[in-house]
Amino acid sequence: MIKALLSDDEIPTHWYNIVADLPSPPPPHLHPATREPLVPADLLPLFPMAIIEQEATTERWVEIPPDVREIYRLWRPSPCYRARRLEQALGTTARIYYKYEGASPVGSHKTNSAIPQAYFNKLDGRTRLTTETGAGQWGSALAFAAQIYGLTCDVWQVRSTYESKPYRHVLMETFGAACYASPSGLTEAGRALREKFPDTPGSLGMAISEAVEAAVKDPGASYSLGSVLNHVALHQTVIGQEMLKQLVLFGEEKIDYLFACAGGGSNLAGIAFPVIRENLAGRQDVRIVACEPQAAPSLTQGEYRYDFGDTAGTTPLLKMYTLGAEFVPDPVHAGGLRYHGMSPLVSFCRHEGLLDAVAIGQLEAFDAGVLFARAEGIVPASESNHAIAGAIRQAEQATADGTSPVIVIGISGSGQLDLPAYTEYLSGQMPDS
Amino acid sequence: MIKALLSDDEIPTHWYNIVADLPSPPPPHLHPATREPLVPADLLPLFPMAIIEQEATTERWVEIPPDVREIYRLWRPSPCYRARRLEQALGTTARIYYKYEGASPVGSHKTNSAIPQAYFNKLDGRTRLTTETGAGQWGSALAFAAQIYGLTCDVWQVRSTYESKPYRHVLMETFGAACYASPSGLTEAGRALREKFPDTPGSLGMAISEAVEAAVKDPGASYSLGSVLNHVALHQTVIGQEMLKQLVLFGEEKIDYLFACAGGGSNLAGIAFPVIRENLAGRQDVRIVACEPQAAPSLTQGEYRYDFGDTAGTTPLLKMYTLGAEFVPDPVHAGGLRYHGMSPLVSFCRHEGLLDAVAIGQLEAFDAGVLFARAEGIVPASESNHAIAGAIRQAEQATADGTSPVIVIGISGSGQLDLPAYTEYLSGQMPDS
Repeated sequence: MIKALLSDDEIPTHWYNIVADLPSPPPPHLHPATREPLVPADLLPLFPMAIIEQEATTERWVEIPPDVREIYRLWRPSPCYRARRLEQALGTTARIYYKYEGASPVGSHKTNSAIPQAYFNKLDGRTRLTTETGAGQWGSALAFAAQIYGLTCDVWQVRSTYESKPYRHVLMETFGAACYASPSGLTEAGRALREKFPDTPGSLGMAISEAVEAAVKDPGASYSLGSVLNHVALHQTVIGQEMLKQLVLFGEEKIDYLFACAGGGSNLAGIAFPVIRENLAGRQDVRIVACEPQAAPSLTQGEYRYDFGDTAGTTPLLKMYTLGAEFVPDPVHAGGLRYHGMSPLVSFCRHEGLLDAVAIGQLEAFDAGVLFARAEGIVPASESNHAIAGAIRQAEQATADGTSPVIVIGISGSGQLDLPAYTEYLSGQMPDS
Repeated sequence: MIKALLSDDEIPTHWYNIVADLPSPPPPHLHPATREPLVPADLLPLFPMAIIEQEATTERWVEIPPDVREIYRLWRPSPCYRARRLEQALGTTARIYYKYEGASPVGSHKTNSAIPQAYFNKLDGRTRLTTETGAGQWGSALAFAAQIYGLTCDVWQVRSTYESKPYRHVLMETFGAACYASPSGLTEAGRALREKFPDTPGSLGMAISEAVEAAVKDPGASYSLGSVLNHVALHQTVIGQEMLKQLVLFGEEKIDYLFACAGGGSNLAGIAFPVIRENLAGRQDVRIVACEPQAAPSLTQGEYRYDFGDTAGTTPLLKMYTLGAEFVPDPVHAGGLRYHGMSPLVSFCRHEGLLDAVAIGQLEAFDAGVLFARAEGIVPASESNHAIAGAIRQAEQATADGTSPVIVIGISGSGQLDLPAYTEYLSGQMPDS
């Protein structure tokens, strides 16, 4: 057996909230003007109350609504594989497994949060969703989710990826959404950014400013965020819960290492938080390693402080590892990882020593991705390549040490829509940023 | 339950050879010069002996080598879904299921035959594979398979799709293959075709001529074909065998209709031949409908006669439904269906009344594909859209009649690399060819 499958009746019934198990409460989000802790009313222009409650809850388990589980069945539980052919290609003594989120409707883990966000907005009577997207994975996930619940959807995509990965916005349009290159001329924030930085490739921070503005100005609209915030991390915990069950099906009671890529933090949180729970309870002793790009190394080189989530300074202040809200990374291809900050919950876990982080260069990431593709037949998303590279380092260390650790890789998505980045790599044109 | 899963230990152990169960022997392939039935030696410049034996065998079951089953585990068994949300979108009384081949390494069923073809070539000591590809699905499948077995791989891709779907050749290159737009300047056939038809969009028949020439001129090389021939149909029968098991898991003992797209016939054969076996044995009474594009309607408008498989007239003569070897269809986007002929086994089944066929226009196909994507979250391959359209016609008929038939759709692949065709459709620019 190389695939551990779970039936769609085994989709988790609850999301796991790590806040309930942390050694101390994580610092609250602050109001951008008063610098006082946010109260629910502050967020109502942006989010429906159910989402606001999830952002602040301290309950350990949050029930997944049956309607959401019903949609999850379209692609969940996701498969977990033993990477035997990668092990052979490496000649490693390690046992490598990967949890694969690329078989979702849009080829990434993002639908795990897009569906509940659209669902709770629909329940609340909102009719339109706005959002930003980097590589386009979140934008296409929300486009799909909006279609499922009959909502309209407007997506601002970072200009550099809008242009370099054109299939992504077609996918959003296929699901019925509208997609604009950001900064766009459609918002005040976008127009101001275009004036200030005429040649900017865009950034997630800029696109967030545009999507937030559009939502705030339309009473029927709501803003959706695909990463960073607590409720997004919460929704993603289906990944880690499933993975822990699947490793047992493989006969692995203990995991030694977990590698996952981290941009805003949702993929990492999704697979790692249920594992941190096991670590804290003494049932596991997994070393968790967030793999971030050298081009946007918030966890390894950022400061842990309050900062804005966007470039225009309109979002709440979040306590997180940050490179500064005005940071614009080089337009590396791992678009989804081009963010100045990091999920406050992931940041807090890092600050508390519950997880480690490593920064990986783009060429090492694509070396790893192509090796993986040729061995396992799955072309990974650019972002996921960073996690594979981190895992390969560990596997090579194990081989050198003559040990046989269990290494799990969280593969956040498929790279079928990232193929322009692979062209650049294969032709030797990719910079190692 | 909406997904019927089989563990990777339930991959079929044998391929099913329909020749053993046909009411009479199908007409043999003929030598292009002598017009006498082919003997194995005629094919040795093209194929290894194991493949030649499979082309001619009358045994009912051909064992799948354990090494091939081991690679199949990377993506097989493929999932089978109940299309509940499509049923709801249609408001139909029919029960609709789909067998989905799009989760393979290259997003289509083609790897089912690419892996054994590369395997038997490797065993035979060949070091290089040449082939042609239309939409690029077969080319990327063979590129992957060649990588698995350490063979080099050269692919001639029909020029119109090479240009309109650029991600496809990047995928081949990611797996280590070389890909050329056909007609190319690299072969005599290609140079002659370029001289005769300077503005040609290319065709599968032309690309086959180039790949065959390259293989024949290199003693270490072998030619691989992704459709049409008996051994390819044989390899694809894992699809239908799995599907029959999965329908039982859904509690469906009887299937009423099966729709699958047909270009060269491999996808249709793969899902339909095991069903024809059940029909012939009286265990099922399934109406099987091949869905072909109006742009290349070999089964519905072609003649049943001997014809060449390629444009240059170098391949064996095959008894099949054909539009004539010089037929060049409009460059519709369903590139994989742009073929003048049809698998001789599929053609024989059609001639014997064992399956029906229908031609479907491109706009109706994409109407169906977008409806399917928005309901089920899977963007289907352009080719597969034809099958979905056929099934939707049947479901609407059932609703009108107040009946509840069981309809199965064979979805040959994912459309993530066909998104340029979806752009054209969504923007209203797609011709109804």
